[in-house]
Amino acid sequence: MLKREATDRVFHALADGNRRAVIERLTRGPATVSELAAQLGVTVAATVQHLQVLQDSELVRSEKVGRVRTCQIDPAGLRNAEAWLQRQRTAWEHRLDRLGAVLDDQTKEPGS
Amino acid sequence: MLKREATDRVFHALADGNRRAVIERLTRGPATVSELAAQLGVTVAATVQHLQVLQDSELVRSEKVGRVRTCQIDPAGLRNAEAWLQRQRTAWEHRLDRLGAVLDDQTKEPGS
Repeated sequence: MLKREATDRVFHALADGNRRAVIERLTRGPATVSELAAQLGVTVAATVQHLQVLQDSELVRSEKVGRVRTCQIDPAGLRNAEAWLQRQRTAWEHRLDRLGAVLDDQTKEPGS
Repeated sequence: MLKREATDRVFHALADGNRRAVIERLTRGPATVSELAAQLGVTVAATVQHLQVLQDSELVRSEKVGRVRTCQIDPAGLRNAEAWLQRQRTAWEHRLDRLGAVLDDQTKEPGS
């Protein structure tokens, strides 16, 4: 998967409050599909669909043992999204710093 | 707008490579709609649609002077998305720390 497409998928996955609630739950530890469905107050089928989106974007991993599927955080997707946002903030702050330096220089000009 | 809905919108806005390209461009300084359209290689109409999504999610602000609309970063949206991701990472790392502490305790048990 291309980096750009992977980033599209992560942000798309995060654009849903129920999917974010799954991640918030899993950061505190693994959970079964039934536990996640109960927490969200939606059907197991709807939960499985959300989990598919989260797995496709590397935000969640799951493993089936017997009849029970257990889910946990996959840190790769969160890292991808956070890295992109941090790059934007750094570029933005760098620009503000340069603007600040320009303003400082202007206020220090003789006669100003 | 509810916090949850605002977060939905920000992540939805970021789930498109062209819209992320607009933000990457604007972190380096303001740009007109025509400049952004030329950079993306899409029509002005398509660019205006992307900008509408970015403005609705507080990622971009714009101002029209005469016939020229100039766009700049609105840091509110980026902060919203980054804050959510940081909370997840912190919770996740906290869990890993606790797991590490449990493992340390187990390896220090007498006779182990």
